Amino acid sequence: MKTTFEIEVEAANQEFYKTFDSASLEAMERIWLHEDWVRCVHPGWDVLKGWREVRDSWGRIFGGDQKMKVSTDDVSVCRMGELALVTCIENIIVFEGADFDSMQAVATNVFIFREGKWLMAHHHASAIPVIIPDSASDNIQ
Amino acid sequence: MKTTFEIEVEAANQEFYKTFDSASLEAMERIWLHEDWVRCVHPGWDVLKGWREVRDSWGRIFGGDQKMKVSTDDVSVCRMGELALVTCIENIIVFEGADFDSMQAVATNVFIFREGKWLMAHHHASAIPVIIPDSASDNIQ
Repeated sequence: MKTTFEIEVEAANQEFYKTFDSASLEAMERIWLHEDWVRCVHPGWDVLKGWREVRDSWGRIFGGDQKMKVSTDDVSVCRMGELALVTCIENIIVFEGADFDSMQAVATNVFIFREGKWLMAHHHASAIPVIIPDSASDNIQ
Repeated sequence: MKTTFEIEVEAANQEFYKTFDSASLEAMERIWLHEDWVRCVHPGWDVLKGWREVRDSWGRIFGGDQKMKVSTDDVSVCRMGELALVTCIENIIVFEGADFDSMQAVATNVFIFREGKWLMAHHHASAIPVIIPDSASDNIQ
């Protein structure tokens, strides 16, 4: 049975991924902590530092021609004081006009409890390479 | 001027990367927290859960034919209660016999203060794609 903490943090995590569907910068602003120490790593990007850079990145992503739909698998939540550390798999579908593509990423999401709400303070997502079955063993170092 | 906290956490972070040179599983065991909730994502790998899986992964990495040397850039440290959140760039050189290759990755490292020491509780590293200057703008979504 899930604890209240787990239910609340999973809901905050889910809310984050729902904003990809809405592509709403205002929704993303409500989800994040607006402080200089927040960090964000999009798949293949360098580290973005501070809320201003993070906000700008979402503006660029949501302002582009691509739309995204993200669902999650294997969500794992751990409490550490006023922080929650989440890992999950992101199933991402990217739409551009009539075309679409899909990818999987793994994410580390850190939430902090402020003013009665779990706010995102850190997001690090990285692509999981597609493994072709015949060469699956090559991926294991 | 750096605080004692920053100096201590940067030293713990540096110690982690020094173990790549030594390829010592024993050294890696001293660096990590040995609990079920620790998580680790190597570049291109899925999430490893719990100290047992994490330890096995280091055993496989250090037991392989490849040797690694890692230096860091742009180390950023933030305190959150008994936790320290570090981001940094990893400059990785991989040696295999007479050959070598280099890559850059970005890392999120979470340390927890236990028994007078900062222990690693979470490591997420992901490759930064090499950008060819003429197509640099393609990387910005």
